[in-house]
Amino acid sequence: MTAHPEQGITLGELAVALNLDLHGPDDQRISGLATLASAGPDQLAFLANPAYTPQLGSTRAGAVVLAAGDRDKCPVSCLVSSNPYADWARIAERLNPARVPPPGIHPAATIDPGAQVAASASIGPQVSIGADCVIGERVVIGAGCVIEPGAQIGADTRLVAQVFIGHGCLLGNRVIVHPGVVIGADGFGLAFDQGSWLKVPQIGRVRIGDDCEIGANTTIDRGAIEDTVLEQDVRLDNQVQIAHNVHIGAHTAIAGCVGIAGSTRIGRYCMIAGASGIAGHLEICDKVVITAMSTVLESIDQPGQYGSGIPSRPQRSWQRVLVRLGQLDDWARRLRRVEQGHPTAKTNAKT
Amino acid sequence: MTAHPEQGITLGELAVALNLDLHGPDDQRISGLATLASAGPDQLAFLANPAYTPQLGSTRAGAVVLAAGDRDKCPVSCLVSSNPYADWARIAERLNPARVPPPGIHPAATIDPGAQVAASASIGPQVSIGADCVIGERVVIGAGCVIEPGAQIGADTRLVAQVFIGHGCLLGNRVIVHPGVVIGADGFGLAFDQGSWLKVPQIGRVRIGDDCEIGANTTIDRGAIEDTVLEQDVRLDNQVQIAHNVHIGAHTAIAGCVGIAGSTRIGRYCMIAGASGIAGHLEICDKVVITAMSTVLESIDQPGQYGSGIPSRPQRSWQRVLVRLGQLDDWARRLRRVEQGHPTAKTNAKT
Amino acid sequence: MTAHPEQGITLGELAVALNLDLHGPDDQRISGLATLASAGPDQLAFLANPAYTPQLGSTRAGAVVLAAGDRDKCPVSCLVSSNPYADWARIAERLNPARVPPPGIHPAATIDPGAQVAASASIGPQVSIGADCVIGERVVIGAGCVIEPGAQIGADTRLVAQVFIGHGCLLGNRVIVHPGVVIGADGFGLAFDQGSWLKVPQIGRVRIGDDCEIGANTTIDRGAIEDTVLEQDVRLDNQVQIAHNVHIGAHTAIAGCVGIAGSTRIGRYCMIAGASGIAGHLEICDKVVITAMSTVLESIDQPGQYGSGIPSRPQRSWQRVLVRLGQLDDWARRLRRVEQGHPTAKTNAKT
Repeated sequence: MTAHPEQGITLGELAVALNLDLHGPDDQRISGLATLASAGPDQLAFLANPAYTPQLGSTRAGAVVLAAGDRDKCPVSCLVSSNPYADWARIAERLNPARVPPPGIHPAATIDPGAQVAASASIGPQVSIGADCVIGERVVIGAGCVIEPGAQIGADTRLVAQVFIGHGCLLGNRVIVHPGVVIGADGFGLAFDQGSWLKVPQIGRVRIGDDCEIGANTTIDRGAIEDTVLEQDVRLDNQVQIAHNVHIGAHTAIAGCVGIAGSTRIGRYCMIAGASGIAGHLEICDKVVITAMSTVLESIDQPGQYGSGIPSRPQRSWQRVLVRLGQLDDWARRLRRVEQGHPTAKTNAKT
Repeated sequence: MTAHPEQGITLGELAVALNLDLHGPDDQRISGLATLASAGPDQLAFLANPAYTPQLGSTRAGAVVLAAGDRDKCPVSCLVSSNPYADWARIAERLNPARVPPPGIHPAATIDPGAQVAASASIGPQVSIGADCVIGERVVIGAGCVIEPGAQIGADTRLVAQVFIGHGCLLGNRVIVHPGVVIGADGFGLAFDQGSWLKVPQIGRVRIGDDCEIGANTTIDRGAIEDTVLEQDVRLDNQVQIAHNVHIGAHTAIAGCVGIAGSTRIGRYCMIAGASGIAGHLEICDKVVITAMSTVLESIDQPGQYGSGIPSRPQRSWQRVLVRLGQLDDWARRLRRVEQGHPTAKTNAKT
Repeated sequence: MTAHPEQGITLGELAVALNLDLHGPDDQRISGLATLASAGPDQLAFLANPAYTPQLGSTRAGAVVLAAGDRDKCPVSCLVSSNPYADWARIAERLNPARVPPPGIHPAATIDPGAQVAASASIGPQVSIGADCVIGERVVIGAGCVIEPGAQIGADTRLVAQVFIGHGCLLGNRVIVHPGVVIGADGFGLAFDQGSWLKVPQIGRVRIGDDCEIGANTTIDRGAIEDTVLEQDVRLDNQVQIAHNVHIGAHTAIAGCVGIAGSTRIGRYCMIAGASGIAGHLEICDKVVITAMSTVLESIDQPGQYGSGIPSRPQRSWQRVLVRLGQLDDWARRLRRVEQGHPTAKTNAKT
């Protein structure tokens, strides 16, 4: 990836900065990052996933970040790490620092005079910030964000663009929120009365802990009475839906298109794979892994992997499975009959 | 929930206003709302879901809204209701009235001179309203909304923020539209011609009836030729996708992440649970309930519950089920054989 | 659909312009478009789907676009086409040309002085365009769009409204992007290190080919190292999620609510039906059709139809299927026993 010029750095500087074991010349200069397969001699690659080990022998990278066990197979310089992917992330951050716009309030932003905005914060064009908001040090609020009255944004948090933060919601420090995210819209609260729906006011807030990251177009509803909560270091991918009063434990990661219904509690260090759905009012304990496109309808009190996703197969074969599913009731009866030594009437007629 | 000061009210005032039966002192003052488990003596709680009945005996709430049958178990003051959840909603609305911004057009809004905007309407900053739009009495259009030419918004409707309304679309009265909603984008109409896709112009509109509520980041496409329609009091949660020419009957409620494909008609008083999908060109009759994560591929002409969601289980156990699914064809053959009195060849060899 | 006045046109003009065979008077005038069932005598309808053939005989349309084989059943004028749906699309485009706003930059837009914007482009209000962007000829950027620095938008491309384009991303010519779309947010890249998640910088871009169309609220993440790519004429419906480093081949169409996980390659001329999910790091070959709500967990190297969606049924019947699924392990054992000639203990006791 060469779209943006990157400042060069020597392998020696990287080894010192990250406390890595360098095999290669101290003064070898790296100017960018690439994959094992595509890297050229001035680029750094990494190997963290064994699926890519076969590409190591033929890499043309200038150097590779890898684990000690892969060192002997590496034909070029290498930086040996106990966690190559994490060290890769640190190097990538160093070579591609996040673009921080200068502090200050863009003239095309609309800031309520009752809002407190730190002088070190950067507020982009077409931003709207309501009364009584508190915007912390070095916060970046990108173009088109809407912050309703009374919301608080912690230090070093970044709302990339077009984010909505509802009234009274609280974001911690170093949170990253991607475009199109809606935090603090009303939860889906309805009472049925005399043939029509009556809206139930949603008077809770959303509280988001430090170091969370929220993917594009994800929605997190405010609580009905108490708050919807993400503890620290929760990571949500794109198009995730978090309903009112959900509570998500620290360090849990949730992949794209997952939906979590109201009042469910998810533990810490859980991982929920893409497009899964979790019903409401459940308790999921710590360290649960939900596999892709699963439907969780009951609470889970033991760590481990759970799922109900069905791998696709050729449609004709799948249609046969569907037909068989419809026959299982009949099979139960037939199996019982043959266990009892009674062949079917039809079979009797033949034999 | 105490983030925002709430004006107090006495139980006597509530009993009179909502025609409830009060057990407790007329002049007892309530200053806020909370759950049975967390409420303190100046707060009101409610009991509508039997799952929470065990919390009633130990509640420290000042008073509880509940059904007559629960009155004897209530250790504190209570307001007896024939529909506790609906009366709770009314009380919550009274104690937390929706924030209504003052009428007028924000100077940072862009209004086409050919648009008609009622003097009582409130138009926020960074709003864009096109030619020939009609914005009704007391409408609230929050920051960042885009209303294309010719759209009409009925009285008392509220677009919270960052909503898109496509050209010519019609919203009724008292509609609530949450942030990120897109109403009236083009439907997915494509004709395949000479190896490429040709866009089919989408010339219908979206018409939304009175008292509908549309959740955050939901999308409702305009019709291909005729209109996409939501009748009155339709309630959509977040991230729902409504394709072109869908027609949804009055009082139907649809939970988060549901997708409904083109030209399907949904009846009145239906309830569709989260993450379900409904194929195109179907007819779903009134009073149908679809359970969570189900796939509806055929029309339904009888009220009742329908579903195809599969509850997750421990992954190892689920993998065994998947293996068994793949064996069903083979089992059908084997079951037929034993019914006919023919043990398997392998079995023969053993016996 | 009569909301917007349409210029009339004669059948003769249409026949000449599209090279169609006209059966009816050259000078018969059509003023609008409608369905077979609803069209009146000044409107044109079409017949492309055999499901609607029964409506042909009783249509009151002025004329119908249809295939040669349907001509004899048509009671009114007709235009005979070898591809009625495609020709309908062309006629609809002619009668309802896309609304092109006049060229120029709206005074309420914020354009970085380092951006290049073609004089023929139209930039709407509340738009933000960053440094080093290149906006091509006749591009239309609707209200509220945010274009980060270094992005390039090809000629005749249209961003309808409230679209986000991340830094350095590239869109081809004649691309249509609907409201709420987020192109080029960070991919979901995380390294686990010492009990917490570490963000992996996402340094790739998104590249979108000519003639693509992207539906409302769809998200396409930037690549982790290399780019996320849509080749030409890819068509995405609403609320589709495309993760980092996905590559989608030309002419592939993807329906609403589909999610595709990271680094998966989809071939050309594929069709993926609504709400399906495709796991990461897979290869799907050309001309694969995935049916609705399917889960693709393995690569596919043969064209054809694949699926795993389960049609819903009455809930009580579906519950029985779920119970039977849980019994399959037990059934396998019992079937084996009867094959071996051993009735069950329980059966023995009875017989």
